[in-house]
This record gives sequence, structure tokens and C-alpha cells, in this order.
Amino acid sequence: MAITVVGSVAFDSIETPAGRRERCLGGAATYFSLAASYFCDVRVIAVVGDDFGADEEAVFRARSIDMRGIEHAAGKSFFWEGSYLDNLNEAKTHATDLNVFGAFEPKIPDAYRDSEFLFLANIDPVLQRRVREAMPQARLVAGDTMNYWIKDHRNALLEVLKGLDVLLINDTETRMLAGNQNLVQAARAVLDMGPRMLVVKHGEYGATAFHRAASDGVGAKPFRAPALPLEEVVDPTGAGDSFAGGFFGYLASQRELTPAAFRRAMFYGSVMGSFTVERFGTERLQQLTREEIDNRFGLFRELTHLD
Amino acid sequence: MAITVVGSVAFDSIETPAGRRERCLGGAATYFSLAASYFCDVRVIAVVGDDFGADEEAVFRARSIDMRGIEHAAGKSFFWEGSYLDNLNEAKTHATDLNVFGAFEPKIPDAYRDSEFLFLANIDPVLQRRVREAMPQARLVAGDTMNYWIKDHRNALLEVLKGLDVLLINDTETRMLAGNQNLVQAARAVLDMGPRMLVVKHGEYGATAFHRAASDGVGAKPFRAPALPLEEVVDPTGAGDSFAGGFFGYLASQRELTPAAFRRAMFYGSVMGSFTVERFGTERLQQLTREEIDNRFGLFRELTHLD
Repeated sequence: MAITVVGSVAFDSIETPAGRRERCLGGAATYFSLAASYFCDVRVIAVVGDDFGADEEAVFRARSIDMRGIEHAAGKSFFWEGSYLDNLNEAKTHATDLNVFGAFEPKIPDAYRDSEFLFLANIDPVLQRRVREAMPQARLVAGDTMNYWIKDHRNALLEVLKGLDVLLINDTETRMLAGNQNLVQAARAVLDMGPRMLVVKHGEYGATAFHRAASDGVGAKPFRAPALPLEEVVDPTGAGDSFAGGFFGYLASQRELTPAAFRRAMFYGSVMGSFTVERFGTERLQQLTREEIDNRFGLFRELTHLD
Repeated sequence: MAITVVGSVAFDSIETPAGRRERCLGGAATYFSLAASYFCDVRVIAVVGDDFGADEEAVFRARSIDMRGIEHAAGKSFFWEGSYLDNLNEAKTHATDLNVFGAFEPKIPDAYRDSEFLFLANIDPVLQRRVREAMPQARLVAGDTMNYWIKDHRNALLEVLKGLDVLLINDTETRMLAGNQNLVQAARAVLDMGPRMLVVKHGEYGATAFHRAASDGVGAKPFRAPALPLEEVVDPTGAGDSFAGGFFGYLASQRELTPAAFRRAMFYGSVMGSFTVERFGTERLQQLTREEIDNRFGLFRELTHLD
């Protein structure tokens, strides 16, 4: 099965206690695509500027990611600069230059139209909705968002949520979207907005899946995938998008979307997020093997296995 | 097997978004004892004042907790007042009146001396050490501490750590004790201070066990017990002490301290903490059944069970 993902492809300058990197390849669609590419075919819809060259293309090509939907526009690519010096769990943003991304009009190649899986990464909900409507054949649609859209573009976001099967956001976003500090109550309120399943990402503590009905998703009760306590966290950038890529990529690789498949997908999401943070930017995600991924899946299983 | 626990028996006035309670029975040794009492015999060493009367005694007696080590002194019992109005994960302390607890000199009844399990709840490390040395027959010794002792009584605390098998503290305390923000590195540094096993409590995200050697504790790798996402958190007071009581009480009920027993003990700790927060003070802990406890244990197992 193939996933089409729409989102940002960007350059990031990042500072963490482990060091600094200038203008490394980043963006939600980049992390998502690389993570998902270990499980299934991935097709990207994005826009980049003149600064996106052969080196960056080679990263996608090495993972056989379909780039026909990456539009090249005159100008510079989306640029983000941030640091995690005080707190590895929360980035301090120093610069966000939308550049060509500011006028992004997603264009869907005909070759993408048979994708059965669609991922709407964190972009303007108006664009998310447009892409979703242009791809009615997608049978499982998942998406992400962020505090900016929740606060200032709520109505557009609510329209997107109606068309989502799975929403993946973090604790703070869940509480903000629902206006409720209790995570379980907040999750129920978000599920009432449309998605059949809500995956709340807890950073270093893993993620929890909630769902509307017993027949959907992971089963009748919430399901928690742990995260491995990591010796070395070099750079948290992209961990959440890598979680989404591992989660959705694994689902797209499955013949049947059983509750057990959703639970394993949660673990694969945690696994891919845990690799990403071990190196700067996409460094670690570029050079994994499926064997390394499955070995870590085994570690995660052991981490909470009772007997 | 019997546990002897030394710690505070107190009165707490608590305010949370769910309401307010004046002078309810509290204290680390109280929460610990009640939680452990569902698994094994419990013997308490503490000091109380004139305000500790028949109603309070009845709470311990109903759970068959041995009170011969509770000294009655002239004056008032330890009193704590706190609120959780902004943040359910962190108490704001409004008053701490040590009262008779300020001159606490633990006295160990002869009838306690065959206890094979000893729990040193959060008190002055000088007293923790004295009790540990007076009970050399204890074959498993666990303890707790807090930021105050870590910061201002470090040398005395380091002496206690040398004699501990298991230290149970939270994330912040672990990082503070080690002077390292990375939890895995901090855990290793704490284990180098003496304890064979470190249980780091993550509040609503469960707890992780680390240990020095593969032959100790839960096995060769860290082990994480999840916490159930709770619909209603009424009052977080005592959750950590209840975790410790469930954890240590379950261990004391086991014939052999196998790695599997330690892993199950982590889950029972999480289970007892999850009950405590559902009501104010010790209300929920006073009226559980072993069946309710084991049912919730089953829910926690399912929460992260893959297949």
C-alpha cells in the first residue's frame, strides 16, 4: 500500500545541549516520509525553493520516496531555527521563515490518486481539507496539527477533524483543543469532534491511543505504547513526525487493520521516534535497517512485558 | 512476610479543583501502610500528637496494621496544608507544621524486629539510617526521600543510600540527586550511590525501574509500568507513597523475589497509586478489596499488551 503525505519540507538550524547544526534537512513531511519509508511506499506533496538541491533530493531518493509531488518554486524553502538548551522536551523558536511555503498550493500528481493512505501533516487546515477532498479514494486518513491552528484557525481545523480517521497530537494540544485539563475527558471531547481515533503523544513517556467505539482502532480501552528511556537524546526535532511515520507506515503495510495491528503500529511509532532523537535532524532516520527497527520493537515489547 | 515502615502520620488540609478537605488523615507512612496492607502484614513506626484519636486509630485497625510503634506525644501531630489548583501534578505547600514530628526519635518495638522487609519513608536521613542499623535482620530495604534532603542534607542521605536495596523517587528528584538532566544517565549515577534498584515515579505516566546488574531486580533492562489514564483525578496526595506500598507490599507477599515478581510489583505499585487519586486523602485506600485491585492489575496489563 502507498501513503501520500502532504506537509512541509524545510531547512532547520537547531541548537541542543549536544551541539548545533545549520540548515539541515527538516520539515514534518520529511521526517514522516523517511520513517514511513521503512514500511511502505511513500509519496510526498510539498513545495521547496531554489536551495533544495541534489543533496536533499538524494536523501529522499535513497529511501525510494516518490518526489513527483514536490513542487520547486522560485525563492527559498521554509526555514526554522530553534533551540532546546533549557528543556529537551520543548523547543524555543528563534525564527520561522515561511518563504515559498507561505503561498503553498498543494498539487496532487495523478500518479498519487490511488493512494489508500493519506497523511495530512501539520499545515494550514484549509490546505489539509482541500487535499483530503481531492483524494476521496483514501480509506484511512490521519493528520496532525499544532497550537497555532488550534488557537487562531479553530473553525477551519474543526472541518478537517470531521474527515479524519486518526488525529495524532501531543498532550498540550489535546488539552488546548478540548479546553479540558483532564486527558481522558479531553480525549473524549476531541473524539466527539470527528476522528475515530486519537493518538496522544507524550514525548519521552510514549503515547496513548483513545477511540470512539470498541469496534474501532486498538480495542475497547485506551492503549499505551511506552518509549524506551534513552541514554542519549541529541536532538528531539522531528520525533513526533517520525512517530506518525512509523505508526502510519506500519498500518499501510498490513493486509488487515485489526486492533492488534493498531497496537503494533503504536509501538512502531514509538520506535521510529526513539531513533530520530539519537542524532541531529534526519541523520539517524536516513540509515536504519528493518532489522534494527524490529530489534528495538522487541526491546519496547520487553520494557512493559510482565511474564 | 511483614513490613516495618517508618515515616510520618499526619493531618492534611488539601484543596484541589474537585474541592477541599480539612485535616484529613495523611502522612507517608499512612498511605504506605494502607496500600501495603492489602498484600502483607504491616507494622508502623511513627509519632502522633493528642489530636490523633479513636477515629484515626480505627482506620489503621480496620486494615489490621500494627500500631505498637506509633508513639503518642504531648502536642499536635504533623500538619500539612497544600493545594493543586493550577497543576494536579505538583502541590503548592501553604503550611508545614512539624509539631511532635520535629523531635521524632523512632522507637522500634521488639515485636517488629523479625520484619524481613523495611521501608524508610521520606523523613530525615539521619533517622532513616538509625532505623536501618537497628534492624539488621531486614533482607530487603527500600526508601524514599525528597528535594529538601537532597539539597540540604546530602551527606546524611548518601549514607542512607549505601544501605538501600531499592530507592523510590520521582523524575525531578532523580535528576536533582544525580545533577544530570538525562534520566538514564541520572539513574546510573544514583545506582552508583548504593541502591541495587531505582524506581523512578513519573506521576500520571507510570514508573520505570533501573538496576545495577542483570541479576538484580526486574531483569537486564529498564522496566516500565504504565499508569492508567484516569477519567477523574480528585486528589493526587499520597499517590507516590501508595505506589511504594503496593510495590513493596506485593514483594513481601512473594515466596521468591524473582525478576517477574519485581515486574508485577511495579504494576501493583501503579495500581495502588491510581486508586488513591480517585478520592480525597486515604478515602479510597480504606475501602478496597483484593478483587478490585486484581481487576485493575488486569486493566494495566491490557493497557500495553500487544497481541
